[in-house]
Amino acid sequence: MKITLNADMGEGFGRWPLGDDAALLKIVGAANIACGFHAGDPLTMRRAVAAAKAAGVDVGAHPGFPDLEGFGRRDMTLSAEEATALVIYQTGAMLGVAAAEGARVVHVKPHGALNTMACRDDALADAIAAGVKAVDPGLILLATAATALSRAGERAGLRTAQEVFADRTYTETGELTPRREPHALIHDADQAVAQALRFLKAGGVVTPSGRVLPAPLHSLCVHGDGPTAVALAQGVAGGLVAAGVALTGLAEAMAP
Amino acid sequence: MKITLNADMGEGFGRWPLGDDAALLKIVGAANIACGFHAGDPLTMRRAVAAAKAAGVDVGAHPGFPDLEGFGRRDMTLSAEEATALVIYQTGAMLGVAAAEGARVVHVKPHGALNTMACRDDALADAIAAGVKAVDPGLILLATAATALSRAGERAGLRTAQEVFADRTYTETGELTPRREPHALIHDADQAVAQALRFLKAGGVVTPSGRVLPAPLHSLCVHGDGPTAVALAQGVAGGLVAAGVALTGLAEAMAP
Amino acid sequence: MKITLNADMGEGFGRWPLGDDAALLKIVGAANIACGFHAGDPLTMRRAVAAAKAAGVDVGAHPGFPDLEGFGRRDMTLSAEEATALVIYQTGAMLGVAAAEGARVVHVKPHGALNTMACRDDALADAIAAGVKAVDPGLILLATAATALSRAGERAGLRTAQEVFADRTYTETGELTPRREPHALIHDADQAVAQALRFLKAGGVVTPSGRVLPAPLHSLCVHGDGPTAVALAQGVAGGLVAAGVALTGLAEAMAP
Amino acid sequence: MKITLNADMGEGFGRWPLGDDAALLKIVGAANIACGFHAGDPLTMRRAVAAAKAAGVDVGAHPGFPDLEGFGRRDMTLSAEEATALVIYQTGAMLGVAAAEGARVVHVKPHGALNTMACRDDALADAIAAGVKAVDPGLILLATAATALSRAGERAGLRTAQEVFADRTYTETGELTPRREPHALIHDADQAVAQALRFLKAGGVVTPSGRVLPAPLHSLCVHGDGPTAVALAQGVAGGLVAAGVALTGLAEAMAP
Repeated sequence: MKITLNADMGEGFGRWPLGDDAALLKIVGAANIACGFHAGDPLTMRRAVAAAKAAGVDVGAHPGFPDLEGFGRRDMTLSAEEATALVIYQTGAMLGVAAAEGARVVHVKPHGALNTMACRDDALADAIAAGVKAVDPGLILLATAATALSRAGERAGLRTAQEVFADRTYTETGELTPRREPHALIHDADQAVAQALRFLKAGGVVTPSGRVLPAPLHSLCVHGDGPTAVALAQGVAGGLVAAGVALTGLAEAMAP
Repeated sequence: MKITLNADMGEGFGRWPLGDDAALLKIVGAANIACGFHAGDPLTMRRAVAAAKAAGVDVGAHPGFPDLEGFGRRDMTLSAEEATALVIYQTGAMLGVAAAEGARVVHVKPHGALNTMACRDDALADAIAAGVKAVDPGLILLATAATALSRAGERAGLRTAQEVFADRTYTETGELTPRREPHALIHDADQAVAQALRFLKAGGVVTPSGRVLPAPLHSLCVHGDGPTAVALAQGVAGGLVAAGVALTGLAEAMAP
Repeated sequence: MKITLNADMGEGFGRWPLGDDAALLKIVGAANIACGFHAGDPLTMRRAVAAAKAAGVDVGAHPGFPDLEGFGRRDMTLSAEEATALVIYQTGAMLGVAAAEGARVVHVKPHGALNTMACRDDALADAIAAGVKAVDPGLILLATAATALSRAGERAGLRTAQEVFADRTYTETGELTPRREPHALIHDADQAVAQALRFLKAGGVVTPSGRVLPAPLHSLCVHGDGPTAVALAQGVAGGLVAAGVALTGLAEAMAP
Repeated sequence: MKITLNADMGEGFGRWPLGDDAALLKIVGAANIACGFHAGDPLTMRRAVAAAKAAGVDVGAHPGFPDLEGFGRRDMTLSAEEATALVIYQTGAMLGVAAAEGARVVHVKPHGALNTMACRDDALADAIAAGVKAVDPGLILLATAATALSRAGERAGLRTAQEVFADRTYTETGELTPRREPHALIHDADQAVAQALRFLKAGGVVTPSGRVLPAPLHSLCVHGDGPTAVALAQGVAGGLVAAGVALTGLAEAMAP
């Protein structure tokens, strides 16, 4: 068994830092780096890419809605062509930054509300996949497992890596348990590792009743913000390795 | 004799159009397309690139200061690393858009105050040239002739195209006559053509006293905003052709 | 019979003008002036307020979503407290500009998607009304007739002016006919006048089947963008006056 | 002897917090609250005003350049009418927020580069003073002592409070020692208190050679960002009180 841990990074903006990227880069195999619309000015991007490259971590573009104030977490209704252009622009900007740092962009993962809306909206998901493909059809789309977004990536012919969340539980329909409900969040590394292993062994998302929603799982998303996030991510990484799971980059995790 | 006419394009933003790109694309050989910071949202960029490609016009990135309200025309004091990152980001975004349209970015021309500040500030000029080179050393830097910017381009080893303005007169020191002075602007196509031919034949900017400031002239900048701008640009193009000047793309204008 | 014609104004931004405010100010009694989030930088606002004051037209704040690129026309999901703060901020900014011009802000009308979402969402409508009231309980809320927004204004105890659109038809449920349907838009001044008179005489929105949705109608919204908009607005104003309707400011239109 | 300690607050933006406002509000008498252009979204402003009001601290508007990425610390060249409109807009927004919180805006202090540029540029200083006066001539302009900005405030007839910095040393010409020089920053509370007392007793800025640049000193600026800033501010407050200086609000500090 093998999997890529991924985390969002470079999510400061100008004067405002955010998260502990240095700590995360010692843990994960893929960095989703903000591209300037929800976070991440050009210089912050450059530093994040340089740090990821130095750590041997996959560099990914993490495009979001044009909403700094809302950190890209507020739903916005864009037309399909606006969404495609938004992904093209931000992914292109990241390609430019990566070129400047002698790095290569491996993947694209939509951020925040752009991501969650695309998980349930085929048209938006297709628009995002079209944007990724238009910039470079060799890019990997990193999508939540068994959603409209992962289906759109496959429909577009993109290499589509499927991820689940390390610190969230799932409902009977395979969606994230809403944050307002008890047990929505996993704070304990052992519980997170157990869930991840259960999903990996089952080959998909396992619902509370034990039903399996089949999906090839390539990646596990961990977080770096919040006081205990890095410790949880470290615990998850350690627990997976102890269980014999190889922690790799995305290309290796997707290889047969 | 040969020269490339260039003009700024794609300088609307969202709901707000600007200029007559369709008319300009019939006249010029190089389009400097706004990259989202002073003008030009992702969708506007995409349409501008598609139109330039369809017209067979060189696609260029036209990065500016992050100042939508001031249209990038207000001086801003950026650090060298901020300026380099700014150019990398916007040029990268344009590369992404161009890739999506099956087009190729030929050149980069800084916009507005970023350009005029760089014409007289070696450190800023070097920072811009470094940004262009970092993204792709094959890009042409389109710089005002005989300025700190054109020198920085050459110092960086970039192919550096030198331009003069069709509709502006020059002072004894080779700078643009300030707009507040009489005769700063050229409104007459014949006068503009005569000045351009004078410069081309002399191999540089010719000052009012007849002194020549030697510079290889590859491009002539025309404008598309203002009620008479397109007509002037058409007149200049026609006059140059009538005088035997070949109007080409940038690579051809720079070829020996 | 009396009514206030209202129109959006000051919707340029920086280098980009929009609409023909000078022409509209000769026609309408109330100006909804953009407040910087969807359009309207500080200097544009100042000029728009000065022009409205000089024309004797009611000055209104026209707050919108923070979405310059989308002109405030894209749905955004804000929390109630975000929406209230957004209205407070933009209305306060307009009060400052009005103070600087010796003018008085008479009303607040939400813009674009903020408006249309509030017409069908009680929580958002209450949040907007709370923002208006918090800044100054003497402000008039200008709301689409018979919607969640007009009800929220009344619930908050605000003077609530109810408006219908001059250039749009209505469905059987009293909503605007969607733009994609035929006959959604009214291009003919006589038809627009006839609809307005029918609504005024009936004391509410009259549906295609002749049903009346009772609402006190204080205002009629006209537009200034588009090639024929000003002419339509002029025709509507002339037609109403010819039919004996007094065109007034908002306070007078709301007086018993 | 009496003086007002003032500090910048509310300088987060959306997802990004900054500084320890709660700690500062126990120390200072005046809060300069960011107004949305360099920091401070509407909701952040509202919370900062509410906190300042609850602490009995003077609420001030802290307008800055429209430069979130640069935190308003990068020089920008605005026209006088742009600068005036910028101050009007942001001060008005703060008035709206204050009204919503049942608070009163006492003063205006320009932020960052807008402030430092205005300290040496009469035209910009006059433009700022004009903006403050246009919104409300009763507002106090909080300006660095003995600068173009304090002179412009007095010239405009505004109540002008003059401040010095607690944690910065001064040059022979009465300007702040540039940060790149040794001894530019004061890290020790005793030294900061000693400097403040020296200035207060001398009735102006005392240069290294002992020359006095006369200025009525009403306020002392302390900072809240940086790991030791709050401790320094606490030490300064304690030291001044121990020396018999009354720490007051701005109106009291300016009273004869």
